[in-house]
Amino acid sequence: MRNRAERERRRGGWAGVMVPITLDAMAYLDHAATTPMLPEALDAYVSAAREVGNASSLHAPGRLARRRVEEARERVAAALGCRPSEIIFTGGGTESDNLAVKGIFWARRAADAGRRRVVASAVEHHAVLDAVHWLVEREGAEVTWLPADESGAVPAGAVRAALDQYADEVALVTLMWANNEVGTLQPIAESAAAAAERGIPFHTDAVQAVGQVPVDVAAAGVGGLTLSGHKLGGPVGVGALVLGRDIECTPLLHGGGQERDVRSGTIDVAGISAFAVATELAVKHQTEFALRVGALRDELVAGVRAAVPDAVLNGDPVERLPGNAHFSFPGCEGDALLLLLDAQGIACSTGSACSAGVAQPSHVLLAMGADDSRARGSLRFTLGQTSTAADVADVVAALPAAVERARRAGALKAAR
Amino acid sequence: MRNRAERERRRGGWAGVMVPITLDAMAYLDHAATTPMLPEALDAYVSAAREVGNASSLHAPGRLARRRVEEARERVAAALGCRPSEIIFTGGGTESDNLAVKGIFWARRAADAGRRRVVASAVEHHAVLDAVHWLVEREGAEVTWLPADESGAVPAGAVRAALDQYADEVALVTLMWANNEVGTLQPIAESAAAAAERGIPFHTDAVQAVGQVPVDVAAAGVGGLTLSGHKLGGPVGVGALVLGRDIECTPLLHGGGQERDVRSGTIDVAGISAFAVATELAVKHQTEFALRVGALRDELVAGVRAAVPDAVLNGDPVERLPGNAHFSFPGCEGDALLLLLDAQGIACSTGSACSAGVAQPSHVLLAMGADDSRARGSLRFTLGQTSTAADVADVVAALPAAVERARRAGALKAAR
Repeated sequence: MRNRAERERRRGGWAGVMVPITLDAMAYLDHAATTPMLPEALDAYVSAAREVGNASSLHAPGRLARRRVEEARERVAAALGCRPSEIIFTGGGTESDNLAVKGIFWARRAADAGRRRVVASAVEHHAVLDAVHWLVEREGAEVTWLPADESGAVPAGAVRAALDQYADEVALVTLMWANNEVGTLQPIAESAAAAAERGIPFHTDAVQAVGQVPVDVAAAGVGGLTLSGHKLGGPVGVGALVLGRDIECTPLLHGGGQERDVRSGTIDVAGISAFAVATELAVKHQTEFALRVGALRDELVAGVRAAVPDAVLNGDPVERLPGNAHFSFPGCEGDALLLLLDAQGIACSTGSACSAGVAQPSHVLLAMGADDSRARGSLRFTLGQTSTAADVADVVAALPAAVERARRAGALKAAR
Repeated sequence: MRNRAERERRRGGWAGVMVPITLDAMAYLDHAATTPMLPEALDAYVSAAREVGNASSLHAPGRLARRRVEEARERVAAALGCRPSEIIFTGGGTESDNLAVKGIFWARRAADAGRRRVVASAVEHHAVLDAVHWLVEREGAEVTWLPADESGAVPAGAVRAALDQYADEVALVTLMWANNEVGTLQPIAESAAAAAERGIPFHTDAVQAVGQVPVDVAAAGVGGLTLSGHKLGGPVGVGALVLGRDIECTPLLHGGGQERDVRSGTIDVAGISAFAVATELAVKHQTEFALRVGALRDELVAGVRAAVPDAVLNGDPVERLPGNAHFSFPGCEGDALLLLLDAQGIACSTGSACSAGVAQPSHVLLAMGADDSRARGSLRFTLGQTSTAADVADVVAALPAAVERARRAGALKAAR
């Protein structure tokens, strides 16, 4: 369906980066799963990877490698509004989430055996959700799940109520900044303040938020914050946990004692250099990104509603990520729709890529009160740096036929 | 001291890769800390990083990303003599070691509460050592430390004896393939056989071994094997744990369920592609590497002995890594020597980069029966792909003055 030369013209050649045929021929609307690495970040990677030197070595190339890492730390800290010493570089968002949830839990329980309750929202990413489940099943944790309203938001009052109810039992609170499926933003500053008043560590998974909305660690008053390279134009396999100096955290990875003794493993100088460049650029261009991509997203929402009048927009209509549009299409299976659109050169997702292929309705939509069939019949379109009006037009053009076809398949299945 | 143009000529321009001045002006003899990324691996990284697509996504770019990962998995498996389904990609050697040691321990204890003993050698890398210590301190593990002889070797009989003594208590055995400090090779196949006879999982940290000596998972009969990208010409931040299909292992990182549900986190397609290229090349050229680099190392050993007659070569004189030369220099502090050589443009190490800067004598040398002063007075020179005769000549030329100076400093300190 797609014309390669035309797309190349429309896209302006992806900022000079060579685009493989498969992508070039696609409308890529799955930026929340992973977004292309910025050329500037890739350049930083290559330039650092051409040097040699372990940042823990004492000799000159080791010291040079260390300087690059500390410069990167300063850039990331400046972009996020925290101190360089609060940045723990990790292998990505999943590791940061696991480290925060398990590490703070272990450390708090070790200091006070009575503190073994995790307060977490029901709409967290699986990296938090499954870490909490594991603590409950295997490490004797208790959990209070914070409910979400029908927009996917967790009212700050819910955090406050849970903390009042279990005053002396809570090890930590974890609440994501923005939901990865429906894009809803959470009231982080208010929730963090409720935890801070009671001296309880507060962690937020901000993987989807950084670069899309303003994220300032100090202003938000959070003690722990997860971010991930490949969601903001950096490399996969690199991320960070912002961790307040006063928060004890038991390591997941023991060894050389790198990263404040909280995260061992040879420091990835090239990856961290690229990650810092991407974080800095994402934060620097956040306002303009939100305006441009938000406008495209609004076009998409309007176009989808016009093309499929009974489509339901999920998530908060206003308090959401600028790049996110998430719909339920009554009578359709999301997976069927996804594959029908894929056949038309459109890449999107039914929810989190991390649970793609899993035949279960989204826990996020269920927590928002959706029934099973609405949860199954949903699609996520996420826009990013490289998105264009042509991408939006392609989706709007292809959707009616795909929905029609998916509905017929659904009706056939129901009739059997 | 070094002449840049001369070094460029001697090195032949590092296989076409642009060399920054600092390195170009150095004799780099710290390849065991980290070795330069191969141009072929960097090319693979860049080419994959220019594509977009989460390997867990169901659409076309996601499926392409998945294909790249599965091709990489097949290449790594073929290089190591195991099945592709046995490869778990991780964030590096430290993560693989922690996952194997803690994960197998947790899974075995969950299946049989009596199995909570770890059998480990006293000369392991800190990634294993500190993981074991943590299990003992925080998770109720018991440990049997296998002693090393004066060459740093752990006799297979020691493994057998430990398994006989604690037949029904052992959760796992972990024994490194080659020591990262003194280079001594361990009798892996015999030790693994002793564990296999008793149905006990056997893990080996082969981070220093792959590409230096023949490593074949099936022939060695090991159930778990750790390798790391940046020790064999691949990127930092990528590694693998080879894990037999029959070995239960509790994840360290929970989430999307990637990598057989043993290791969650977005799959690093670019890093894994580069890692696979590097692993394949390292294994393919292993014999020629061992011959060429082994000959250079022998020259270095002979030259050091001639220049400093009372220098003591540590580790097994024959059963050692071809790139490793490790000496004690009586009357010297290793750190002082390191810095004196660094000032002459020579990069080496006192031991593991992962414990560089830590003012403690090496646990490996102490386990080999060295006294504190011999342990403190040691230097590790490690050669690799880019090493030349000029590097060796530089060390031999600079060493006598550096040793003389370090001795005077040591004597002064003792006299105070």
